[in-house]
Amino acid sequence: MILPSNLSTQAIDILLRGISQVVLQNNPVSGLVILVGLFIASKIAGVATLVGVIISTLTAVLLKVDKSLIQNGLFGFNGVLVGIGVSSYAVSHHLLIDHTLWLHIVIATSLSTLVMIGLSQFFTLWNLPALTMPFILCTWLFIGVVEHIDLSNPMATLSHHFISEIDIYTIKTWYIGVGKGFSEIFLQDSAIAGYLIFLGILINSRMSAIAALAAALLSIATGIAFEVSEESIQLGLYSYNPILTSIALGGGLFIYVTKFSFIYALLGAIVTTWISFALSTALQHLELPIYTFPFVITTWFMLLVAMSVNSLKYISTSEATTPEENTNRYDDL
Amino acid sequence: MILPSNLSTQAIDILLRGISQVVLQNNPVSGLVILVGLFIASKIAGVATLVGVIISTLTAVLLKVDKSLIQNGLFGFNGVLVGIGVSSYAVSHHLLIDHTLWLHIVIATSLSTLVMIGLSQFFTLWNLPALTMPFILCTWLFIGVVEHIDLSNPMATLSHHFISEIDIYTIKTWYIGVGKGFSEIFLQDSAIAGYLIFLGILINSRMSAIAALAAALLSIATGIAFEVSEESIQLGLYSYNPILTSIALGGGLFIYVTKFSFIYALLGAIVTTWISFALSTALQHLELPIYTFPFVITTWFMLLVAMSVNSLKYISTSEATTPEENTNRYDDL
Amino acid sequence: MILPSNLSTQAIDILLRGISQVVLQNNPVSGLVILVGLFIASKIAGVATLVGVIISTLTAVLLKVDKSLIQNGLFGFNGVLVGIGVSSYAVSHHLLIDHTLWLHIVIATSLSTLVMIGLSQFFTLWNLPALTMPFILCTWLFIGVVEHIDLSNPMATLSHHFISEIDIYTIKTWYIGVGKGFSEIFLQDSAIAGYLIFLGILINSRMSAIAALAAALLSIATGIAFEVSEESIQLGLYSYNPILTSIALGGGLFIYVTKFSFIYALLGAIVTTWISFALSTALQHLELPIYTFPFVITTWFMLLVAMSVNSLKYISTSEATTPEENTNRYDDL
Repeated sequence: MILPSNLSTQAIDILLRGISQVVLQNNPVSGLVILVGLFIASKIAGVATLVGVIISTLTAVLLKVDKSLIQNGLFGFNGVLVGIGVSSYAVSHHLLIDHTLWLHIVIATSLSTLVMIGLSQFFTLWNLPALTMPFILCTWLFIGVVEHIDLSNPMATLSHHFISEIDIYTIKTWYIGVGKGFSEIFLQDSAIAGYLIFLGILINSRMSAIAALAAALLSIATGIAFEVSEESIQLGLYSYNPILTSIALGGGLFIYVTKFSFIYALLGAIVTTWISFALSTALQHLELPIYTFPFVITTWFMLLVAMSVNSLKYISTSEATTPEENTNRYDDL
Repeated sequence: MILPSNLSTQAIDILLRGISQVVLQNNPVSGLVILVGLFIASKIAGVATLVGVIISTLTAVLLKVDKSLIQNGLFGFNGVLVGIGVSSYAVSHHLLIDHTLWLHIVIATSLSTLVMIGLSQFFTLWNLPALTMPFILCTWLFIGVVEHIDLSNPMATLSHHFISEIDIYTIKTWYIGVGKGFSEIFLQDSAIAGYLIFLGILINSRMSAIAALAAALLSIATGIAFEVSEESIQLGLYSYNPILTSIALGGGLFIYVTKFSFIYALLGAIVTTWISFALSTALQHLELPIYTFPFVITTWFMLLVAMSVNSLKYISTSEATTPEENTNRYDDL
Repeated sequence: MILPSNLSTQAIDILLRGISQVVLQNNPVSGLVILVGLFIASKIAGVATLVGVIISTLTAVLLKVDKSLIQNGLFGFNGVLVGIGVSSYAVSHHLLIDHTLWLHIVIATSLSTLVMIGLSQFFTLWNLPALTMPFILCTWLFIGVVEHIDLSNPMATLSHHFISEIDIYTIKTWYIGVGKGFSEIFLQDSAIAGYLIFLGILINSRMSAIAALAAALLSIATGIAFEVSEESIQLGLYSYNPILTSIALGGGLFIYVTKFSFIYALLGAIVTTWISFALSTALQHLELPIYTFPFVITTWFMLLVAMSVNSLKYISTSEATTPEENTNRYDDL
């Protein structure tokens, strides 16, 4: 694909500015000099810089963030650092460089843009910059995720360089996993109770029920993709948080329902699953159960994002009633 | 007692909505279906749901929170989850189901309403919902409390199923405990210094002194009720934080003095003592001394609550002078 | 030096009020009674109280904080507690009472004033008081710093009561340390890459480059003063965070450049170095790399301070462009 020359020039300008923003500069030439320095230091760091700055900037473009912020490279510098941070960790811990690792990198890097937007929105009230906090948080999360997968499933390929026997996921993994996913919201281990809870949701709002069910399925798929143990998937342990996030984001309760808001909710389900891995590790250190913490943290951030991007429309809590009413009101506008 | 039928109907409606709000729904029928599911999963979970939703909603009623929020079940769902969370923990850790455990449950469940109000007030500026964070925090606190009591006093009954020799608390526990409670504010272990500090407070404000003394006594009573070791009580270790909380809440410095504000301050003293147990556990993991952290955290939350309920009147920091002046000004209004 | 009697009377009044503010009172007589109590409890505690209240209040005076707040002792009480907290820790852990310990005490105590201002600014939106949180944070930091220095360099004198062989710091420590300090911003261990990154900064802004270079040198000096290991200094591990803080504070990006803002940036570099020690300890417990966390935390606090003191002028993020433009605009005012 050949980009129109002015567009490709602009893209390069933005990406190089993104690199220079790591040291709080806004200058493509500075970015280029720094990039050369990074390639001299390590080829992997150089490549990671490029991958990071591209993915994180693209994420901002897709979410329709304010253009001038993107043009100043403000959604690139955290991506650069996450790219370098994750790849350094992967090299020093001998992780297998396969499609699974790439998936982690894409998630961590684009997540840094979500965190950047969310944190900036939070700090708007003080006019404070988010600085490199998104990089720090997302790289810590990645480390927690890798540790968790390693501990949860000794057969996972991430840090084991041999062809592993993969856990066998069956149809039962799915239908029991979905049921227990709903019941684990209430800390119960009962698929029947879970389907009754699903029924309870359906009675009140079809929209919430669809968002919840889609998230339950997606969280199981995510768990399988990242090779966590079959047992924990069937116990619903990776599903109850994504279900709640998806209702909050996609059920029309806090964000007006559009095609994009539904995609955003499913994205939220994947992010919640991924973050669950990391928070499990962190809370194991503190000997505390994780409960619905991943749902709460992810939803707070993704609601803050929803407030500030042009691709979504936030419903203030004081207006929020039921999903269907909210949607009708939005259609009237 | 027979409730007038419309009132009891309304109460049931609110409680069932509270249950449905766990999955972000606002519908009594959904709540009923979910409740049935929970009883199927486990009778204990079903009962805990009812206890939790009742106590947490009642707390909101007593604090005179905005009625429409209560009617939508928004002060029930965290109580439901705390009830289930605490009872699950109690069952799986073989805690003794006696009056002490019930006291913990009442504190944790009604605390979830305070945290809900405080967190919502904090998040008002962003229009963000508190979600299930109050549940998570209060259940974590409960776990920390139980662990701390277990470690602090191997004779405590909480997780030991035999008739224990209880520590002997004497009159000395009280008068030395009070004195050292005041001196521990300054990290000193001297009852004489403590009574001089009390004198210093009395010189400036009789109101602060009364609030402080009442809190010191109450914190010792709380420690005895929860069977923490006599030694640590006499060292004032459970008293210095409640003393400070009580001055801040009841001394007329940030909240106008009324009969209810005094009760609120004493409530604050109990909550601070209870939270001290949990934070001791947490900070032991991090190998850090606890200092006045329980006072700070509890006071921040309870001041946020004071700002948003109708039963208390917050004094903005810019107006705050001395308790007596504040009270006079309030009387003039 | 003889103070004019009214000035010295006022100073004593302020310091005694500061002591009484620990128990939320605003009364010099109360402060005096409490001070007597503290001297009875322990002479060291009494002296520490005086040192703490003087340094923390002086810091507020130098930063030109609102006078009425200073006069009410609001910048003294956290200093009192930090003084006592640090000296108690020093005594109980048999630290050597030499000039190094005094340096730590001065930093921790005056830092408590920065944290007090920053936290108060953060809480302005809710009208919440900072209470004794600055004391808690600064004393925890001190403990972390001591632990880190102990572990990092077994030859450091802090807790070792014999004349130690000090690490040999050479000219190479400096020029390699500076280079790697710049490259560690990007997690790279290459002095050449580092000097290219410095060049990248210089291309865009001479002001940022000067602030960065001064911070790099100062952070190495700080590391040497606190006797951390030569190896880690040469690896740039104590320099990359201060470099970033200094660019953010002194590069004219968020604070208008004046003589004082430059001093403030260098102060920021020292504070960041010191805080790095403590955060290294904390994150080692959590098995996480520290990345640029010290820079972010320190800069957030010091920007909050910049917003509220009269000695500095904050540039809102929406206006911030390049240092040179910001400065020109300021000169036009």
